[in-house]
Amino acid sequence: MRDDVFILGVGRTPVGEHWHLGLRELAAAAIFEALDDAGIESVDALYVGNMLSGGVNGQENLATLVADAAGLLPVEAYKVEAACASGGAAVRAATLAVASGAARVALAVGVEKMTDGVGETVAEGLATAADQDFEASHGFSFAGLSALLMRRYMHETGAARDDFAAFSINSHRNAAANGRAMFREAIDRDDFRRSPMVASPICVLDAAPICDGAAAVVVASREVLRSHHRPVRIAASAVATDTIDLGSRADILHLRSAAVSAERCFRHTGFGPDDVDLFEAHDAFTIIAALSLEACGFAPRGEALRFATEERIGLAGDLPMSTFGGLKGRGHPVGASGTYQVAEATLQLRGEAGPNQVAGARRALAQSVGGHGSVAVTHLLEV
Amino acid sequence: MRDDVFILGVGRTPVGEHWHLGLRELAAAAIFEALDDAGIESVDALYVGNMLSGGVNGQENLATLVADAAGLLPVEAYKVEAACASGGAAVRAATLAVASGAARVALAVGVEKMTDGVGETVAEGLATAADQDFEASHGFSFAGLSALLMRRYMHETGAARDDFAAFSINSHRNAAANGRAMFREAIDRDDFRRSPMVASPICVLDAAPICDGAAAVVVASREVLRSHHRPVRIAASAVATDTIDLGSRADILHLRSAAVSAERCFRHTGFGPDDVDLFEAHDAFTIIAALSLEACGFAPRGEALRFATEERIGLAGDLPMSTFGGLKGRGHPVGASGTYQVAEATLQLRGEAGPNQVAGARRALAQSVGGHGSVAVTHLLEV
Repeated sequence: MRDDVFILGVGRTPVGEHWHLGLRELAAAAIFEALDDAGIESVDALYVGNMLSGGVNGQENLATLVADAAGLLPVEAYKVEAACASGGAAVRAATLAVASGAARVALAVGVEKMTDGVGETVAEGLATAADQDFEASHGFSFAGLSALLMRRYMHETGAARDDFAAFSINSHRNAAANGRAMFREAIDRDDFRRSPMVASPICVLDAAPICDGAAAVVVASREVLRSHHRPVRIAASAVATDTIDLGSRADILHLRSAAVSAERCFRHTGFGPDDVDLFEAHDAFTIIAALSLEACGFAPRGEALRFATEERIGLAGDLPMSTFGGLKGRGHPVGASGTYQVAEATLQLRGEAGPNQVAGARRALAQSVGGHGSVAVTHLLEV
Repeated sequence: MRDDVFILGVGRTPVGEHWHLGLRELAAAAIFEALDDAGIESVDALYVGNMLSGGVNGQENLATLVADAAGLLPVEAYKVEAACASGGAAVRAATLAVASGAARVALAVGVEKMTDGVGETVAEGLATAADQDFEASHGFSFAGLSALLMRRYMHETGAARDDFAAFSINSHRNAAANGRAMFREAIDRDDFRRSPMVASPICVLDAAPICDGAAAVVVASREVLRSHHRPVRIAASAVATDTIDLGSRADILHLRSAAVSAERCFRHTGFGPDDVDLFEAHDAFTIIAALSLEACGFAPRGEALRFATEERIGLAGDLPMSTFGGLKGRGHPVGASGTYQVAEATLQLRGEAGPNQVAGARRALAQSVGGHGSVAVTHLLEV
């Protein structure tokens, strides 16, 4: 695959409960900001990352709706779904379109509208990322399945629930400085400890919120670059899968999809975990943040909680994580989160992250995970 | 885009009411047949075309489910949705992946399971291809919106409903010889005339059925070709969009998305309508078959019904249509139909269409249309 595919612009709506905005308005707002940022007016293709529009919002044919709202008709457009990793998969689709030569400029937009649905509830919708025949139909919720992972991790490592606090505290600290984040307030260990139970041992402050949002990324080939651009190169892009149902995995604490997709990025570039300056992690639950750290090789098996001190994962640490607040603090509009990650990593590498800036960041790993690690999309970005 | 992308294998389940098979079993069956046909055991990527799994089947994360069922983990996989054109969009995604160099071999599988849902009804699901805010929420069904198109066409051209019979008769005649078709029986003008009303003027025999099925296509780069292969080249591949809601179109009888995507294929290859030996059309309704013929330039505006005689669109005609029975006769498992079209066109170009063979076929146009022409995916195949 050609290696000269670049990100030229990004757009992000604030994340929150946008009662006055629907899917089309959110997606179009992110697209307009991204096109403006790139100084580009037209695109050859549009890929929309989204998970829940069919069941929760009663809207398929979503990419056409978005293309129309953004004034891009008759552009090539389709929706891309990979559960909670849909936003990352949309960036992958745009990367492939540009790398193939079919598009000089492609847009990826991730969008999710979780408030104000017309069909199934959000809890029912999120459970469609699990196996309907063997998990969801038995009453497992998405949080309930994640709780099994966390319980097993505590059993194998001897960790207490409080030991997961660092991820949540870090994400909230970074979100507090991000004007687009849903939760702009820091929390401390006492807040984490007192947090109400969701599905034991997962509490509210272990879990990302239900929310609305959209983020967009303009991907282009080298020929499109102009002097006003501050391009960020997509050094590698990879998707990998694992079983949906946890019961079929030999080792539920190894996120194989996250490991394989990260390894593909490292192998393609020749870089390794030590070469990464920041990690936009899929911290939908604190346990997923921990397992991702281990799967990508940043921390040894069973060591993620000891790794995750402020000195290491804070903005001034060896491996800053979730630098704009992550899924926990910025918010997790599921099919949009993967696109937010890539947009935020791009701002970091351009040195435009403001109070969230990681000094001297040259390389970023953004990893979006769907369905308890059944699918993962990883991008390695570089300037 | 590189022009040496080939189809090496195809698979198709019978179309019908598969009460004993779910999404994963249907998709895996089509994949196994396609891999066997290609003589290939492993693939680099899997793209699953599907429209309704989230709302009707309670199953997102569908591509992961299919990858697991087909024994392809940890392969790259995501779902592609473009309403009723999803199966065509999956072939497009596989084509881009191979053209980019990211994959040497990619699988596209379209799958739909419309019987035996767990969530919204199929009618509610199909209406998600319309605009939820401005059409579906007012009670418009998918057939009801198509009826508006047919009524307008009759008004502008003076045609009677009976004049649409040729499309349905042709599809049923071809389906009768196709062992994988849902309706293996010919119909005549009297059957068409007596057909019960669905949404005036659309009757049962104007409309494709609700059904289950899956079709798969193996797409590969030139380096993968071996002497045992009978490759069919993807000469061109294109997607285009139009407004979802009919009310926003200046001319609802011009399927702009179909026209633009066909024109992109013709421009890319230098061919025109006269160079096409057969047309796999999106005959979900007889009116869509008529409008597609006109949009692609096979018939002048308002002339499609006069064009559609048995002498022209039959297997021995100038432009054989829906050669394996089309959506009307073979069946229309919505997100799979576009993949069936490409698989059937491939068999035609390999000379393996049996009693449905179009003599000497060298070039085929397969066009999958979503949501009353709001999106269209067109492939031009060649041997």
